[in-house]
Order: sequence, then structure tokens, then C-alpha cells
Amino acid sequence: MTETAISSCRAFVFDAYGTLFDVGSAIKRCQESLGDEAEKLSELWRRKQLEYSWLRSLMGDFTDFWTVTGDALDYSMAAIGKNDPVLRSRLMETYLSLDTFPEVVETLQTLKNNGHKLAILSNGARHMLISAAKSSGILSLFDEILCVDELRTYKPHPSVYKMAADKLELDASEISFQSSNGWDIAGAGHFGFKTAWINRAAQPVERLSHRADVILARLDEILPLTIKPQTA
Amino acid sequence: MTETAISSCRAFVFDAYGTLFDVGSAIKRCQESLGDEAEKLSELWRRKQLEYSWLRSLMGDFTDFWTVTGDALDYSMAAIGKNDPVLRSRLMETYLSLDTFPEVVETLQTLKNNGHKLAILSNGARHMLISAAKSSGILSLFDEILCVDELRTYKPHPSVYKMAADKLELDASEISFQSSNGWDIAGAGHFGFKTAWINRAAQPVERLSHRADVILARLDEILPLTIKPQTA
Repeated sequence: MTETAISSCRAFVFDAYGTLFDVGSAIKRCQESLGDEAEKLSELWRRKQLEYSWLRSLMGDFTDFWTVTGDALDYSMAAIGKNDPVLRSRLMETYLSLDTFPEVVETLQTLKNNGHKLAILSNGARHMLISAAKSSGILSLFDEILCVDELRTYKPHPSVYKMAADKLELDASEISFQSSNGWDIAGAGHFGFKTAWINRAAQPVERLSHRADVILARLDEILPLTIKPQTA
Repeated sequence: MTETAISSCRAFVFDAYGTLFDVGSAIKRCQESLGDEAEKLSELWRRKQLEYSWLRSLMGDFTDFWTVTGDALDYSMAAIGKNDPVLRSRLMETYLSLDTFPEVVETLQTLKNNGHKLAILSNGARHMLISAAKSSGILSLFDEILCVDELRTYKPHPSVYKMAADKLELDASEISFQSSNGWDIAGAGHFGFKTAWINRAAQPVERLSHRADVILARLDEILPLTIKPQTA
């Protein structure tokens, strides 16, 4: 039973971008400068950001996520024929104060009140994560903010998920991992986490070898699947 | 001088899909069944095929390229709401007899006549590459058909490019690598090959750390940059 699998978990680990933080909110704040191109830029920026993180990991040519995010933006602005250094700076800065999705704060607060350990496990650079979490008021809810800065490789490399299990001092099977990214769910499941895919955009299932234990439309749908751990 | 770099190369190694073979030709043969969705399916199929090859390499969950190609097609057909097993089979079969781009045969023939070693270095499974190369009449022009079946990881992992240098018994710097994929050029350049990016679609430069030595619009534009090796 997949729901039972999640209810027995002792820690809830969250992907950041697209799962807690609405990466589309970066573009929305610069909508007036982008007009009809806003959606295309938003989609391409995110896609290239992921591609560059995977490609650099695979090539053995790591660079931090702030640089990757800027490189992806440069490619995407070039692709829509936009050369505007001021707009570029504004878009990059929005990444440091992204909006959370509406249900995020209350979901995290409830899980914490129920005695669960909470962590972020993200490809983001530490300064990016701390800044966005502080700006949206969720930083204090987490026991750990886990990033790949020292590992020098990105998800879905198994070493990234292993770092979370090691830092939380839990077996992989005791951790429920939440992500809106199907590929991240596949990587986490392959490593051994229980997984909840927050499929906000109702996308097709990724054809990778590990499927999510549960598929939810919003993050708060995980609450009925969790139970408060018994105290001794 | 980048052109001099290529003129001193002793072997020419080619990516297959998108470089020698027109992957769009797969969809064109099934255009009547797809109508307006043809272009979207073609673009998404290719994108997911690449993503799955990178993700599986990074996760340490390799499967052969025929399976990856089928998985990517399944995702893409689901994304456009198409459930048609006969069409799926027809699309997969076209991968075994893809068209080459118009200038490919003559370019390869000229390089071979001038005494250069030629090889394919592709993520494709051996049976896929042999079938497509045989069907388009270019198989006999190559000294080596190099695929990742034994390495169990995909480009741009450095071990794939290293395999080519090892099999050709050449130093990386003596090899000119041709690909239409900017990320593949970055991986090959990072390993140490000389690189020619065949940028057929006039795409923006990928923001990865290695840039191409030359950027060409068609494969035959490499011929003026090559010289016939001197015999002893």
C-alpha cells in the first residue's frame, strides 16, 4: 500500500523550485517588459536550467546553480532575440524572492506541528535557497536546508539523495520525498525514498523506471496521508 | 586558429541523429496520421529522448537507446493525447531507416577519398545505427561504428568520447568531432576533441563551458577546412 508507505515516514524532504517555490512567479513580475514572449521565456529558461544542471553533472564540469540559472537565462533571452541587461538582472533577482505556492506555508506548518522532521533538498545554491526561504517566511520551519554545493553534482545523481538520508540520520525508506518534477521523483525512488509527485500541471507520467508512490495535484493533499508519530 | 586545428585532424567522428540522419524524417513519413500535431510530437519526442538518456546516465539506471526512444515516444504521444499502437510501431520502425541530410553522402565520400579515418560516435544502440547506416548506403564509408552499449552511459559523459579516441588509437586532439547538438559539442570539446558544430537550425550558442572550434550551417562546409594527409 503506497499510502501506508508514506504514513510511516519520519521525515519529509522537499524539492524547492516548482514544488515549494513558483518559478513562474519570476517571469510574472517582469511581464510588462516581455509581453507575448513571457510564457515562452519562462518555459525555456526552466528547461535550459535543468538541462545545463544534468549536462554539467554528466560531463564532470560542475558549476554552481546561480551560474547555471544565469546561463540558462542568457540562452533563453538569445532564443527570443532579447538583449536587455537590466531585464536580465531583474529576472535573476526575482529568483532570490520567489513566491511559494498558496498551500505551502500551512502544509509545512502542519507537518512540523505534528512532529515531523522537514528539509529542503534542492539543486539550488545555498545562498539562493536561504534567500528565497527567508523572503517567503518558511526558513524557520526546516530542520535542514540541503544543497549540492559540496557534492559538485546535481539531482538525480544518487549521491544527492544519499546526502539527505545521511544528514537526517534516517534510512532512505523512512523519508518521504515531495517534488513537482517527475524526473526528480524517479531519481529519489530509484535511490530508495518514498515519493509523492506533486503533479500541479497534470503532466504525463515520465517513462523512467521508478514511479511515484502517490501522485497529488497540490502539496496539502499529502496531509491526510501522514500520521503524527507516536511519542515514547 | 580554429580552422587550422581541424585541418590537422587525422580522423573525423560524427554524431548520428540530427547530424547525419534527419530525425524529423521519421515524423514526416507519418504526417497524414498526425496532422497539426506532427511538429509538436517530433520536437517533444526528440527532447524526451535526450532527457531520458541524460537522466538515466546520471541516476545510474542505464537502459539501451531503443528502449529510451520508445519511452520518449510513449511520453510524447500521451502528451498530445494520442493512443495508437499501430502509429507507435510505424514511428519506431522509421528510426531504422532514417533519411540522411542531402549533403551527407558526398561529404563522407570526399573525406574518405582524401584518406581520413571516419567513425560514428552515437548514443544509439548498435542495431539501430547499423540499420540506419545500411539503409542509407553510408555504412561502408566508416572505419568504426561506436556506440555506448558496453559503457552503459550516454554522451556527454567523458568515457564515451574517450572510447572513440581509444578505438581509433589517436590522441583526442587529433580527432575532429562533428555534431548538430550544441551540448554534444560542449562534451566533446571538454574531453579534448576539436569540434565542428553543424548548427542547421541556427540555434543560440549553448551556455556551457566549451564552445565549438567552428560553427557551420551544413556538413559539407567542413570540406574546405580539411586537407589531405601527406603520405610518407
